[in-house]
Amino acid sequence: MKSRPSGRAPDELRPIRITRRFTRHAEGSVLIECGDTRVLCTASVEETIPSFLRNSGKGWVTAEYGMLPRATHTRNKREAASGKQGGRTLEIQRLIGRALRAVIDLKALGERTITVDCDVLQADGGTRTASITGGYVAMVDAVNSLVRKGVLRDSPIHGQVAGISVGIWAGQPVLDLDYAEDSEAETDMNIVMNNGGGFIEVQGTAEGHAFRRDELDALLNLAANGCGQLLARQLEALHAD
Amino acid sequence: MKSRPSGRAPDELRPIRITRRFTRHAEGSVLIECGDTRVLCTASVEETIPSFLRNSGKGWVTAEYGMLPRATHTRNKREAASGKQGGRTLEIQRLIGRALRAVIDLKALGERTITVDCDVLQADGGTRTASITGGYVAMVDAVNSLVRKGVLRDSPIHGQVAGISVGIWAGQPVLDLDYAEDSEAETDMNIVMNNGGGFIEVQGTAEGHAFRRDELDALLNLAANGCGQLLARQLEALHAD
Amino acid sequence: MKSRPSGRAPDELRPIRITRRFTRHAEGSVLIECGDTRVLCTASVEETIPSFLRNSGKGWVTAEYGMLPRATHTRNKREAASGKQGGRTLEIQRLIGRALRAVIDLKALGERTITVDCDVLQADGGTRTASITGGYVAMVDAVNSLVRKGVLRDSPIHGQVAGISVGIWAGQPVLDLDYAEDSEAETDMNIVMNNGGGFIEVQGTAEGHAFRRDELDALLNLAANGCGQLLARQLEALHAD
Amino acid sequence: MKSRPSGRAPDELRPIRITRRFTRHAEGSVLIECGDTRVLCTASVEETIPSFLRNSGKGWVTAEYGMLPRATHTRNKREAASGKQGGRTLEIQRLIGRALRAVIDLKALGERTITVDCDVLQADGGTRTASITGGYVAMVDAVNSLVRKGVLRDSPIHGQVAGISVGIWAGQPVLDLDYAEDSEAETDMNIVMNNGGGFIEVQGTAEGHAFRRDELDALLNLAANGCGQLLARQLEALHAD
Amino acid sequence: MKSRPSGRAPDELRPIRITRRFTRHAEGSVLIECGDTRVLCTASVEETIPSFLRNSGKGWVTAEYGMLPRATHTRNKREAASGKQGGRTLEIQRLIGRALRAVIDLKALGERTITVDCDVLQADGGTRTASITGGYVAMVDAVNSLVRKGVLRDSPIHGQVAGISVGIWAGQPVLDLDYAEDSEAETDMNIVMNNGGGFIEVQGTAEGHAFRRDELDALLNLAANGCGQLLARQLEALHAD
Amino acid sequence: MKSRPSGRAPDELRPIRITRRFTRHAEGSVLIECGDTRVLCTASVEETIPSFLRNSGKGWVTAEYGMLPRATHTRNKREAASGKQGGRTLEIQRLIGRALRAVIDLKALGERTITVDCDVLQADGGTRTASITGGYVAMVDAVNSLVRKGVLRDSPIHGQVAGISVGIWAGQPVLDLDYAEDSEAETDMNIVMNNGGGFIEVQGTAEGHAFRRDELDALLNLAANGCGQLLARQLEALHAD
Repeated sequence: MKSRPSGRAPDELRPIRITRRFTRHAEGSVLIECGDTRVLCTASVEETIPSFLRNSGKGWVTAEYGMLPRATHTRNKREAASGKQGGRTLEIQRLIGRALRAVIDLKALGERTITVDCDVLQADGGTRTASITGGYVAMVDAVNSLVRKGVLRDSPIHGQVAGISVGIWAGQPVLDLDYAEDSEAETDMNIVMNNGGGFIEVQGTAEGHAFRRDELDALLNLAANGCGQLLARQLEALHAD
Repeated sequence: MKSRPSGRAPDELRPIRITRRFTRHAEGSVLIECGDTRVLCTASVEETIPSFLRNSGKGWVTAEYGMLPRATHTRNKREAASGKQGGRTLEIQRLIGRALRAVIDLKALGERTITVDCDVLQADGGTRTASITGGYVAMVDAVNSLVRKGVLRDSPIHGQVAGISVGIWAGQPVLDLDYAEDSEAETDMNIVMNNGGGFIEVQGTAEGHAFRRDELDALLNLAANGCGQLLARQLEALHAD
Repeated sequence: MKSRPSGRAPDELRPIRITRRFTRHAEGSVLIECGDTRVLCTASVEETIPSFLRNSGKGWVTAEYGMLPRATHTRNKREAASGKQGGRTLEIQRLIGRALRAVIDLKALGERTITVDCDVLQADGGTRTASITGGYVAMVDAVNSLVRKGVLRDSPIHGQVAGISVGIWAGQPVLDLDYAEDSEAETDMNIVMNNGGGFIEVQGTAEGHAFRRDELDALLNLAANGCGQLLARQLEALHAD
Repeated sequence: MKSRPSGRAPDELRPIRITRRFTRHAEGSVLIECGDTRVLCTASVEETIPSFLRNSGKGWVTAEYGMLPRATHTRNKREAASGKQGGRTLEIQRLIGRALRAVIDLKALGERTITVDCDVLQADGGTRTASITGGYVAMVDAVNSLVRKGVLRDSPIHGQVAGISVGIWAGQPVLDLDYAEDSEAETDMNIVMNNGGGFIEVQGTAEGHAFRRDELDALLNLAANGCGQLLARQLEALHAD
Repeated sequence: MKSRPSGRAPDELRPIRITRRFTRHAEGSVLIECGDTRVLCTASVEETIPSFLRNSGKGWVTAEYGMLPRATHTRNKREAASGKQGGRTLEIQRLIGRALRAVIDLKALGERTITVDCDVLQADGGTRTASITGGYVAMVDAVNSLVRKGVLRDSPIHGQVAGISVGIWAGQPVLDLDYAEDSEAETDMNIVMNNGGGFIEVQGTAEGHAFRRDELDALLNLAANGCGQLLARQLEALHAD
Repeated sequence: MKSRPSGRAPDELRPIRITRRFTRHAEGSVLIECGDTRVLCTASVEETIPSFLRNSGKGWVTAEYGMLPRATHTRNKREAASGKQGGRTLEIQRLIGRALRAVIDLKALGERTITVDCDVLQADGGTRTASITGGYVAMVDAVNSLVRKGVLRDSPIHGQVAGISVGIWAGQPVLDLDYAEDSEAETDMNIVMNNGGGFIEVQGTAEGHAFRRDELDALLNLAANGCGQLLARQLEALHAD
């Protein structure tokens, strides 16, 4: 068995660090570090709702994703300068938004919007799943600030959500791919799970060769295990006050 | 067990019709009908390559996706008039492109591009997977035209690819959701497979509740069966000359 | 006298086919085929009006035009991907809208909008005039659906409108140019007429040499004859229920 | 017979003034005033050609049209600020470009581009035809500067072109509509003619009621007469050195 | 001491001409000529306010700036065609707007907007400061029209504002640089002052070498003197009725 | 004398912290903190040049500026999502670029581009001047990496540059305004200086009242002193290896 570039065991996560209140203004502000991947997740509360929810009595949770131009090995063109967000960005922010909405009761949130901005300061693989894991903590902090201020009586969040990547690298299923692994993985899968062990999103793409059902099963097992650890790390961070 | 709006069995596909040479100019032109969903897939060959492949000796296969404004129950704004393709469109056309590239040897294709345009004339659920299934046939016709003209000695296509949706509807796993089912499904999954039984793409999203591992397993089984039937229908259509 | 590529007499239209209810969702849905030119015209009713008509008590009829990327001999860039509609597209859809508004009483339509989408599935010359001729039938169907539902007591449509192209080809005036003729015509003219024999639009452009007044007269005569036939074909199609 | 708001006879042009060398930098710079309509037409020579002419040995003549935001009664949004040129602008500049190209031999011009910018300083009807009439003079000046410098041996311009509007106002055919007439005209027509009496463009639109063939004939006669006068004024201006 | 290309003394302005009512429709319309620089400044009154002032009881003054494509030595791309206003344009129009707002009481103006459009017909250096100097006169005319109509009892304008450029050219501080000087200046500074001798804007940029404090002092002195002359010319023009 | 919200003396800078190598991939990566303002400045080297420098033998230094959506008290719309960079952003990044180019010999840099991205993680006033001060350090690190690799023999940087804001707050000239001061300052000025005591940029805007010459002099003195301290802090940071 070829050993991973990072020396990690196949089912080993990178070191995770979750820093709350990383910046001052946002209702929730979390820096999540998964190895060398660093994403700043801020959750902002605004007392407006998108027009498609008007008169629905419901609130909304949405996400935006960005990468600083030099978060990566070579500089990427700044999307604001290009005049639009690329397909990859739109795809990722839609994924993050869906994941976060899966654990909050929008009716109970009331007619307000929480926007979770996930900005990648440094990229080393797994930025979208780190955004979900960190964005959840920022959303909790933002919601709790509403409870503390008496705007909401109870938190409308009814579960936890975290995301992780898995893939087939050098023929073996591995957990939490870094960039070196990701760029030569044959299959790449992002899994989002809740704290009831249920799947929120399963997104797998065969890069090199199509994956067999038994490989898929192995990847799902790895992911379930990884998400479990991440959910625990979220709780630790949230209880650290 | 509640019966499906369409009266189909849980594992029953909608009627499929694949019409080749639907329009005259494209190297491959296929109208695929999956029940009331109708997608026109044209494959165009151009003797250029995108700049990121310059000097690589490789060709490229890419897809674009569009929906006529009134393909749906209510009129959607025309994307050309809005000034951009939405996130959903970009996500879908990236998916179609990846799926088609999974069964073609880009080196053997040579320095040319095949663009598969998938335009939805009428939508009733499953437009992205119909685009993959029909787009494959259009791509084969386009490649065969190159072989017939002597531009290529052999076809660089080394496999078949088809896509299908599955989901949990009214508590039960069902195959090939139409719009009525899709709009109230709890979970929605698009699966792309090749003719070796391998998975090319697995994209599942929990809408109502997170799905359990056993539900996921049932959905994957349904999809494998459905894709098998679609792959057979592709061969029939291609052999119908 | 050089004979036309299609073998048609100078004053002979291409075969016309008008298929109503071509797609299922739109209030009016017409596929018009003029020889190898095929345009899908859908008319959609929406209970809103553009802001410049607010508080006017009037409704609106507008058109949008598009060409599938491979409707033509070589693939055209998708306008949605380019990020804007080109000048030719805007010019054509403004023409179609004006033509349709010429035969409807916007006051009697009431505060609602009918959008006629004209999407070219296959192009062989004359797409803009085919759009007008087919779009009229779709608009009638949409308006009749409002009458049937009791939304309107009477149809606000007070006339018929059709369009045809004429031109000087190989030195002779000809009716209804196909692409082979159009691409080498010296003069190209699009004429829109109503069923009272009146002109709604006259748009002529000298490509090769300026046209003399007698040539213009001959073209107008040809067009009047051609429009007469098209108006008859519209009635046949509308009475075919 | 109701008399025109301006007191002019039905076949009377507004006073025309053509000022050459209105600005300093352009190879041709003409202010044309048709009554209260004032358009600054500059012709710029650039030693490049658009990509679709590469290796054709041909040059190009193109036009751009703009209106200063407060050229009109109420302020219009600046197109540069809106982020795009509207359909009306694109339609007009395509028309001007076609008209100017009708009287120049692009092969003889050689691989260079003449861009004629028509910017409306003050609008009172007829801006597009004034742009053609004035733009022609600017183009001649620009071409002559190439001849004077020895870049071209002979002028590639082989004719004159001018444009005028005609219409049915208060039931009678009138020449050269100003804004007060134009805004209540039943039919509006722009005619572009060369100095051989040939038609380059005929663009008529029924606003109020469809026009009959005899009305069309009367309008064409008026236009032919008006264009004749404009062509004479162009020569006067060009010979005024 | 090297003499200036224009032969002017270091502290000598170019000839200034201010023509009011240059065009007919705008409430204020001023052509300002500073040597060969010619800018048309129109002030338009609209009875709306931008959304950020809603319910503030305040009005707004804003400016837009544009350059005709061939105002300069070589043709610039039309910003409306490029699809956006460049950074230089945005910077200049923000500057003009701030300068004009410095001498008007927005509360007293009431809930209306004055838009000052500054369009450069011919450029020879100093277009932004000419826009401020001429735009002020146009704004006064527009405000006075409101007073004359009884919309406002008193003018909300409480001072005068003018702008001028200064710079270090060939080692010496000079006033009012034309293009020939500007393009080889080592330092370029735009100064906006009011009629109380106060500074509204000071914008200096070292092009060639950083400027010393004594150079800055000399430039400020030159500018104060130049602005004084411009303010006097504004009064002359305004009293010329 | 009213005391500053922060309790600082009028001529007292906020605490400065300059952290080099804050992220891993960029050739220069600096986090600069000026009180609560935090800007991440990365300098990226690319072996290309903008087209206007082709064949000039020169390199280029340019800057881009962005603010994370929730760097501020309330969330700002993400510019990438809006589809363009606002006028303020363009103005700031042009300023940063000019400042950095003032201390580097572009000829000696050779045909390559250094892009300095300044992304504001947290804003509390003075972000543009912090970007210049921090961006300089990042540029030095990037250039030194070229020297270390032997790409350049000597550093083409020939001086130091730093920026600071000054203003009139509560009637008194103060140095280095934070947001609380800035939002109620009567005059706001950004000064960029080099290590020879020369001015690179002077940009002052009267917000409340025009400033007198003696106020301007006091502000310039404060700024010169502040820049001196910043230049010293840059050297400390650069020598800290």
